[in-house]
Amino acid sequence: MRVIYNEQMAELADLLGGMAGLAGSAMERATQSLLNADLELAEQVITEYDRIAEMIQLAEEKAFALLALQAPVAGDLRQVVSAIQIVSDVNRMGVLSLHVAKMTRRRFPQHAVPEAVNSYFAEMGRVAVKMGATAKEVLESRDPERAAKLTDDDEAMDDLHKHLFTLIMDRDWQFGVAAAVDVALLGRYYERFADHAVEIGRRVVFLVTGVLPPDPDSEKESI
Amino acid sequence: MRVIYNEQMAELADLLGGMAGLAGSAMERATQSLLNADLELAEQVITEYDRIAEMIQLAEEKAFALLALQAPVAGDLRQVVSAIQIVSDVNRMGVLSLHVAKMTRRRFPQHAVPEAVNSYFAEMGRVAVKMGATAKEVLESRDPERAAKLTDDDEAMDDLHKHLFTLIMDRDWQFGVAAAVDVALLGRYYERFADHAVEIGRRVVFLVTGVLPPDPDSEKESI
Repeated sequence: MRVIYNEQMAELADLLGGMAGLAGSAMERATQSLLNADLELAEQVITEYDRIAEMIQLAEEKAFALLALQAPVAGDLRQVVSAIQIVSDVNRMGVLSLHVAKMTRRRFPQHAVPEAVNSYFAEMGRVAVKMGATAKEVLESRDPERAAKLTDDDEAMDDLHKHLFTLIMDRDWQFGVAAAVDVALLGRYYERFADHAVEIGRRVVFLVTGVLPPDPDSEKESI
Repeated sequence: MRVIYNEQMAELADLLGGMAGLAGSAMERATQSLLNADLELAEQVITEYDRIAEMIQLAEEKAFALLALQAPVAGDLRQVVSAIQIVSDVNRMGVLSLHVAKMTRRRFPQHAVPEAVNSYFAEMGRVAVKMGATAKEVLESRDPERAAKLTDDDEAMDDLHKHLFTLIMDRDWQFGVAAAVDVALLGRYYERFADHAVEIGRRVVFLVTGVLPPDPDSEKESI
């Protein structure tokens, strides 16, 4: 029983890690599509979301089967319950990269964001991709110290997000209302992507230490 | 065993329903605070979120205890797993009402939204509150037909959201960039609140029928 449980739990953890990796790579390409107004790349991200959606369903089924057939207890049970919660965070990361790609498509052949803020999105994209990769590693290694690092990256993301907001809210913003609104929403997508990666880290810390770190999102100012 | 399971599951379902009701009432007051630039009411919503957060933790603990002590199978297991997923949706509904209240506080003593779009927010608030109440009922009654109605309300929300966007993206928008950005983000909070209510409905439909309806959010255009 125990051997089967360990095998199936390892499979589930790999699947979650694989999905986090896919979400990170989707955000990487979505960001490229945004910066270069690359419709083809955006369409690719949109099409490939279906693969993440399939993996989500598979992961939910695997977690359910583990509970039903292995009836895990204590720490093992906590792992499966955490996996169920993590699935939904990974799914949102995928959906948020989809939203970025759809913004590229919606504004094509125009660029969705003015060139003046490209560097912000390039950097937010870089941080998001890094966080996707870290989430993947954390899911595979269950290293709580590495998981806590996601919070540092999230702070970097929040700083970028705040800077971006001071730019669009400034009287000197010269690209008009529509561009400001697109930038604001896109900024929110990246920031939420980071939040979900942090949430995955929190769940892993909880798994290993038994203590759930506070939810940074409920404390944040809501820009 | 079975009697205890039924009792504990009924308690958990009541707790989830109670939280959905609280989230709806938080959104109601957050909307009032927004429309009237009522700082006191906004602060009340912000303070009372702590109560939702406590209930979230309690619900997670109850679900875990149910799995650990009752080792439910088949349909019973599905109920507990769904409850775990629903907890996270209800939590987001609470956080989103918190975001609306924080926007009121951030812009006080100014109104966060121009009077010209007040009617949109009043209506989006009304739909959100209705959806919170329906989610509560659905959690308590497990009526799949009632759950499916959440999708109709979500469509009403999406229509309002789209209209609001045509207004702020229009060349005739006369309230400046900052107001447009606030309106765009607020619109997104209401729309996400509705999505989470729909998600609760989907989970209940799944519980009762065994079939999970498609996720409307991944299909939507990302405004």
